[in-house]
Formats: sequence, C-alpha cells, structure tokens
Amino acid sequence: MPHAKNIIWIMCDQLRYDYLGCTGHKTLKTPNIDALAARGVRFSRAYVQSPICGPSRMSFYTGRYMRSHGSHWNGWPLRIGEPTLGDHLKKIGVRNVLVGKTHMAPDLEGLKSLGIAPDSIIGVHVSECGFEPWERDDGLHPTGRPRPRYDAYLRERGFEAPNPWEQWANSGEDAEGALQNGWLLVHSDKAARIPEEHSETPYMTRRAMDFIGDAEQDGRPWCLHLSYIKPHWPYIAPEPYASMYGAGDVQPAIRSHKERQQAHPVFAAYMDMRYSRNMARDEAREKVIPAYMGLIKQIDDQVGALMQFLQARGLLDSTMIVFTSDHGDYLGDHWMGEKDLFHDQSAKIPLIVVDPSGAADTTRGTVSDALVEAIDLAPTFIEVFGGTPPDHILEGRSLLPLLRGERPADWRKVLFSEYDYSMQDVRLKLNQPIERCRLFMAFDGRWKYIHASGFRPMLYDLLSDPQEFSDRGEDPACAGEIARLQAALLDWALHPKSHITTSNARIAAYADQQLQVKAGVLIGIWDEAELAAIRQRIGI
Amino acid sequence: MPHAKNIIWIMCDQLRYDYLGCTGHKTLKTPNIDALAARGVRFSRAYVQSPICGPSRMSFYTGRYMRSHGSHWNGWPLRIGEPTLGDHLKKIGVRNVLVGKTHMAPDLEGLKSLGIAPDSIIGVHVSECGFEPWERDDGLHPTGRPRPRYDAYLRERGFEAPNPWEQWANSGEDAEGALQNGWLLVHSDKAARIPEEHSETPYMTRRAMDFIGDAEQDGRPWCLHLSYIKPHWPYIAPEPYASMYGAGDVQPAIRSHKERQQAHPVFAAYMDMRYSRNMARDEAREKVIPAYMGLIKQIDDQVGALMQFLQARGLLDSTMIVFTSDHGDYLGDHWMGEKDLFHDQSAKIPLIVVDPSGAADTTRGTVSDALVEAIDLAPTFIEVFGGTPPDHILEGRSLLPLLRGERPADWRKVLFSEYDYSMQDVRLKLNQPIERCRLFMAFDGRWKYIHASGFRPMLYDLLSDPQEFSDRGEDPACAGEIARLQAALLDWALHPKSHITTSNARIAAYADQQLQVKAGVLIGIWDEAELAAIRQRIGI
Repeated sequence: MPHAKNIIWIMCDQLRYDYLGCTGHKTLKTPNIDALAARGVRFSRAYVQSPICGPSRMSFYTGRYMRSHGSHWNGWPLRIGEPTLGDHLKKIGVRNVLVGKTHMAPDLEGLKSLGIAPDSIIGVHVSECGFEPWERDDGLHPTGRPRPRYDAYLRERGFEAPNPWEQWANSGEDAEGALQNGWLLVHSDKAARIPEEHSETPYMTRRAMDFIGDAEQDGRPWCLHLSYIKPHWPYIAPEPYASMYGAGDVQPAIRSHKERQQAHPVFAAYMDMRYSRNMARDEAREKVIPAYMGLIKQIDDQVGALMQFLQARGLLDSTMIVFTSDHGDYLGDHWMGEKDLFHDQSAKIPLIVVDPSGAADTTRGTVSDALVEAIDLAPTFIEVFGGTPPDHILEGRSLLPLLRGERPADWRKVLFSEYDYSMQDVRLKLNQPIERCRLFMAFDGRWKYIHASGFRPMLYDLLSDPQEFSDRGEDPACAGEIARLQAALLDWALHPKSHITTSNARIAAYADQQLQVKAGVLIGIWDEAELAAIRQRIGI
Repeated sequence: MPHAKNIIWIMCDQLRYDYLGCTGHKTLKTPNIDALAARGVRFSRAYVQSPICGPSRMSFYTGRYMRSHGSHWNGWPLRIGEPTLGDHLKKIGVRNVLVGKTHMAPDLEGLKSLGIAPDSIIGVHVSECGFEPWERDDGLHPTGRPRPRYDAYLRERGFEAPNPWEQWANSGEDAEGALQNGWLLVHSDKAARIPEEHSETPYMTRRAMDFIGDAEQDGRPWCLHLSYIKPHWPYIAPEPYASMYGAGDVQPAIRSHKERQQAHPVFAAYMDMRYSRNMARDEAREKVIPAYMGLIKQIDDQVGALMQFLQARGLLDSTMIVFTSDHGDYLGDHWMGEKDLFHDQSAKIPLIVVDPSGAADTTRGTVSDALVEAIDLAPTFIEVFGGTPPDHILEGRSLLPLLRGERPADWRKVLFSEYDYSMQDVRLKLNQPIERCRLFMAFDGRWKYIHASGFRPMLYDLLSDPQEFSDRGEDPACAGEIARLQAALLDWALHPKSHITTSNARIAAYADQQLQVKAGVLIGIWDEAELAAIRQRIGI
C-alpha cells in the first residue's frame, strides 16, 4: 500500500517522555501504547518547540517555530493569516478534524478588522486553528468560563452540579462524602467522583469513534486529532485507576542538591515558584504521581479500545497512528513542578508513529534517535496524504524518510525550543522587561545549550551528565561548545520562514528564467547591442 | 501648538544620502530641501531596513523589520494581517493617503482564503498596504503591465504612443528625432521627450495638491505619503534639468582598487553584476549622474512649489513635513551599480523632519547623529496624531524626543538592516540555497558588521576608514568588535515582535494582577489553607 488513507493523531497533555512502559518506566505498564511502538517507530529524541501547552500546540498545528507563529503563551491568539496544517490539508481535499483540546485562541481583533464573522465558515476555520471541530474541549473548565459539551453529557447522566466538570470529574470526596477540590494537590490521592466510563478520557475516545463512523459515510480522507486533556492536572483519576498505583510505585526524584547551589537565576526563580516548592516535597510527589500514573494507564486502555475499534472496522491497515504529547511534567524532578524549562522531563516528549504502508515494514519496532521536533508532524502528514509540504512556510521536516529506514545526510544536527515567561511571576522576580523574558534551547543530541536573554547561558552535557545536574554554562572548559551552539542559535534565529506569501519555486524561477528582463524591467543595461545580446541569450 | 495636525511624508526613490546640498554635495544645489533642514532636524545616520525598494518600503509602512513583515523582495506580497501604519492611524481617525509609489503587492492568496474580495473596502485597504490610494503609481510601467492613470494624462495632452509613460516621459530622441530607449544608460544624457510640467515629478506634486485641497473640506486629519518615483531609473530628465549638469559636476568615484582584491565572495559577485560592471565605467557615470542630479534638482523645485502651496493655504504651521528616500544608489562607487549592499551609498538615506510644534523650536536647523531606522517613522507619526504606538507590534521608536531636543539614554546603540538576494543572479553565481541568501548589517555608528549566511563576515571601521574601503572581516585585531556586534545581532534576531495579537499591557496585567488564579485556574496549590492565603493576598 502506498500511503495511509487516514491519520489518527493522538496527543496527551503533559505526558512526559519516560512515563510509558516502552520508554522505560519501572512500574507503569502501558501495553497498548507499547504495541504501537512495536508496530511502528518510536522516536527517542523528540522535543517540543515550547514546553507549555499553547505555544507548543501552535507549533504542532502550524509546523512553525514559536518565533514564527507568534503565539508565545496560553491564550495568546494565533494571528489571522498564520497558515495551519488544516489550511494545507484543505488544499489537497483532506479533512482536519478535532476531538479534544487545542488551546487555540482566536484573533478576534484580526477577524474584526478584516470583516470576518467568527461564526462564519471561514471564521470558524480560522478560530479553530484550521480544525473542523467535531468536539472542541480544552479540558480546563473552572466556573465562570464557557461550558463544554461534556458538562451537559454529565448532567444527562445525573451528575448535577453548578460545575459538573469540576465537581464530578475533577473532584474527590472524603470519607464523609464531602467534596474535595481536585485542583489541590493534597487531594490527588482521592478518586474522582465519576464512574470511569464517564470520565474525560473514555468520553473523548468515544467521540473519536463517533467521528470515524461518520467519516466512513463521508468518504473524504481525514486527519483526526484526538487530543486528550490527561494526564494534565487536575491530577485526579477515577477508579480503578485512582488506586492502581501507590507510593511504592513512585520513582526517586531526579534531582541533586548541587542544582540548588549557584543555580542560574532563571532556574532559581522557577525552583522558587509555588508549584515547584510544593512538588519538590515527597508528600506531594507521593500523592500526585500515583494519580498521574493512573491517568496514563487509563489512556493506555483507551488506546487499546480505539485500536480494537479500528481493527473491527478494517481500518488498521489504512490508518497512520501517531501518539505523542504536548510537553512533559517535572513532577518534583530538578526541584521543579509543572514544565517551563528545558530539562528532558519538560521538553522531551514520547513520539510513536505507526505507518501502515509497506515501505515502513523495515522499521517496525525500531527506535530512532534522530533529532525530531514537534513541527515535523505537519509536513509528515501533508506528505502522507500525497501533498507537497510548502517549504517556504513549514519549518519542520517530514519524518517519512525516517519511517522508511532512510537517514537523510542533511538531517538537522541541532534542534531548538523556546520559552517566554513574561506572563509568569518569574518576570516579576527577575525584574525583566516584558520583551526580554525569553529562553532558547539549542540541543545537538549531547550538549544542551540554553540562551537566557539578559543572563549568562546554561549548558548541560547529556553524555557525561544524562540527568542534567551540572550546569556548565560558566565552565571555561566548555567555551568552545557554547560558542558552537550559540553560532547555531544565531543561524537559526536569522532564518525564520517569514516570507509565507512567496514560494521557493517562484523565487527559483525568477532568477533562473530571467523573469525581470522578460517583464521589460531593464536594469543597468548599457546600450541596444547589450540588450539584444541579453534577449538572444534568454530567448526573447 | 501641541502637535501637527497633518503630515506630508515625501519619499524619493533611490535618492542617496549625499546628493543634497545640505548633506554636502559639492555641485548639486537643493535650496528648497535645505530650507526644510533649516526649519527642522536633519538626521545624519538614518538607515533603511533593506536597501531595495519593496522590503524597505514595507518596513517604512509597517514599522517592522524585514524579518518580521516577511516581504523580502519587490513584488513579494505583504501577508494578510500584517499590521500597517494605515491600520494604526485608522484606529485614531487619521486618513493615511497615498500619492505615488508603494511597491505593495497584495496577498491575493491570503485574501482568497479568507473570502475577502480585493476590490471591497477592506480588500483595497489591505491590498494598498493600509493606504487610501488617492493615486497609486509605482513609477515603472514597461509595456504589458497594467497602465497607470498617468498614461491617460499624457494621452489627453496629445502624447500618443503604445506606452506613453515609456516612450514620452522616459525616452529621449536623437538628432533625427528617432526614439532612444530611456532604460538604456547610454541615453541618460538625452532629454526626456516630455515638457517638464508634464513629467512625473510635477504631475505627482499636483496630485498631492489636489488631495490637500480636497482634504480641507473633509476635515479629518491626514498623513499624505507623496512618494516620487525619481531619481530612480530610467535615468532620464526633462529639460531644463536634462542639461543642467554635465560631466564636470560628476564627483570622483568613491572606490579603491584594494576593494577588488580579495573581495568578500558576496561583494565580488555584486561587483560582477551587469549593472555594476556598467556603472563602474566612467563613461556611464558621466551620462547617468548628471541625469540623476537633474532629477533631484527637479524634485527640489517641486518641494519648493509644494511649500509655497502650503503657505498660501495657511497649512505650514499645522503640517509636519518629512523628507526621505527608500534607499540609495551606488552610481559606480565601490565598483557597484544599483543598491543591494550596505555601504553608506546604498543603505543610508537622507531624513529631514520639520515638526511645526513649539516644542521643536529648540532643534530647528540642527543635525542629529542618533542612530535612526526607517521603522522609526511609523511610531513617530502615530504619536504626532496623539496615538500610542503599539509597542508589541512596532519595532521602531518614535523620533519625537529627538525632535524636541531630548536624547533618551536608552536610545538604540546598534541599528540593523537586512537583504535577501535569492531573486538575483548572485544566488546562482554563489550557488546558495534559496533560504540562505541572506545578509544582515549591524552598525553601531562606527563599526559596520555584515553577517553573510554561509560566508565569513565583513567589517568596516567608519572612523578610520569613512569611505569603507577596508574590509576587516578577517582581521584578527577586529575579533573583539566582530564578537560584540555578532552578539548584538543574535540579540536582535532572538527578539522579533511576533506576538502582534497580544499587547504588552495585557501581558503586564496578567502576572501583576494574578489573573490566572482569579480565573479559577489553580496550579500546584497544596491545600485549602494555601489557597485561602493566596486568595486573601490577591483580594478575592
């Protein structure tokens, strides 16, 4: 078979690289996800473009670095006219469908200034980041925000409350039945009040199945983004997952006291964030991590159910399956909570691609250590559907050669990630100007260089220090590595793909074919004889 | 008076810095432009963001660097949604009006994908780069392209031809009356066939006067961009300007034989371009430069006429006058023709600002050597009209403090310019990949550092070598200067203003006012007691 006909692109939220069976977790078993790895290629060095939901996802959905798409933080609207995967797939007749989270915020001001109604067909396409929203649900629904369809689903089943999402699916109860706020870490050891089948992960899986069933009638090829909110906080799992793991399953924290001594100012500011101080405590880790593991186990079971569904429908052989995450979670490692910085716990993601085509048979069950970026998925998908990724817009590279056993000689030698902390307390602590709250990672597979605007750089050698305990940013012995990666960062920074209106094919034709002279624009030609010679040479 | 009520923003095309009386030309007299300098501030270190029409202008019109607006070359459409000066002025009720050239190409694909008709009100606003086109005329009209209104104007006056613009206004004739192609340098010493009053510069001046008359009835404040095509090629002037200057007025070429020895590969490739080889010949300089000077002299006279018109209408005291250019012209200096590289002949522009407000009285007739960029005009204009320049979008700085005698301590220490040669034969000669045909200048007022992707850097010391003959890019003694300016370039490259949808005010409020917690998104809070303490602290 030449190409997959459809793609299911599963994304977890805040799932870190090493919390799967196939990536080496000691006590968490994920047989269904591992089975995907056995059928496809697992990438061991895949990184996000920004270790925080919104900007990371905008990079996945545009195939462009954060510096190019400009949405640096959750809720920062993606500017109108920024081309998305959905735009590219639409041109080749492929549906780009969403079930779950995108974290997209529409550019309402841009829409207004161009006279586009947000609820028009084009308005929705733009506002949903190029997705056809089968069901949009960003998975965080505190009281006072617009309600998800999932609220109504819960109510229909008798789970009544002012905020069913929060009070049933994301809260626990104590021995007396009193509600326990699931946002708070201290309650992560409780079970969500909801029966498992009505919790968010299986609900979204069923919504994906609904779409797939519907799409069979429609007939057009599709890319389905099944985007789970979990294991993102609130860290609370329904039974049986809530009690599946305990303190004995929690791995020792990956951290060193030397990290706290002479920490880089930005790192120190993050270690001092409330969520870091809390998650650095063993008591918190022992409550949160078992819940986090249970939520992953639930996803694994749902992946299994989805694969069975595809098999029953005869779709397994025609569907590419992609499994990944939008960033990781420190979980107390490096004295940190949340994500934010570029340690592997935060910036590295699981990525498994099952390509059903015969051309990929040689790579099944293998692990690729190629340097892969989140932005590589968009061009991969376009190529799977037979399109040509627009190389003046997309900043990632198609993974298809890697899936088919090739290792292109010009594959990237350095990958990049970015972070903007202007929306966080860290800005206030460091007293940095808004435009300079920026961090950049350049990683060559061994050396991880971090440029922090206004501060000295950080540097980790993952060969001699795989746990990233020793910041060598001030080590004179590393000056050469720092200079080399700084030059790579400069080169990257100087070559954004910003000329999105002008294709490389058009550029090539212009000089190659002397289009300027052909159009009659005659620059610096001396006389009639010279002009005649030029015309003869270029054949006009 | 607090502020000017209107702005007339005169732009010449291809007028280099040193071809005015007030900037030191020995034989060219420009009393009317000099009079502007006497009434205002003349900037002696103003540089364009790219020394080529289209991208330079898109930077003027957006207030953003080329790497941000993405239009790297003439005819590369400005992406839809890229905010323009016109967008910002519209919000504060100011008309942004065009008479003449912009070199704007509309993003037709972007318009189509958003369902916007190019001839709708919004479509025209976008397609005209935020200008209200009183008369759009890009000033280059070879046969086969859409015709300008100016063609009809000529025909109405009896200047009949298949292409009146080319055959009357931009061609000469020989002694026998035979047409001589004005595109060719050899004919630059001839007079254009048109009577002076019907040539392009006075025609456009009258069109500007038409608008000003009309605007008095309208009553809204306005910014009028009077954008002359001249002294841009075709280098041919009408009488009396055609014979006003001769070979004796041509200054010696600024060049050194050592420039040709061991020239940087990019510089060498440009010196080998047809237009450079031709313009490096004295015979060409002696034909072209007198015509170039005549065209400037004509502009000077038209500036005088326009000032008289304003005075007669009582508008001089309420109108800011800005006089500038979109880039220079080598005219054979440095063995080069055209523009393209960053020598002062190419990248430096004249800039005069006459601010009629009383606050500017102290600076009248002074020269400012502040490092100024083309992108500084957009925020200046917004501020003149009482608006607040959106500092998350605009990458330039308002010149108003400089006009009023202040020298902000944090004024830029380094300015930047860019160039993309992918559309030129130089790409083929150097065999560079399309995406890497990039040049970047970082200039601190003394050292001019030029980064050329894929090549060694260039460096000039304008203190010891004001004529820029010695490329110190490989001089070990300059390693420190190179490292310093490379670091400045990295810093610049890492901080584009790409988050155009999210204002700095919104960003500041978010962390300052704890908006995340107020919205109910509770991250990493341990228990009820901690939550209560936070709520109390932030007052909810």
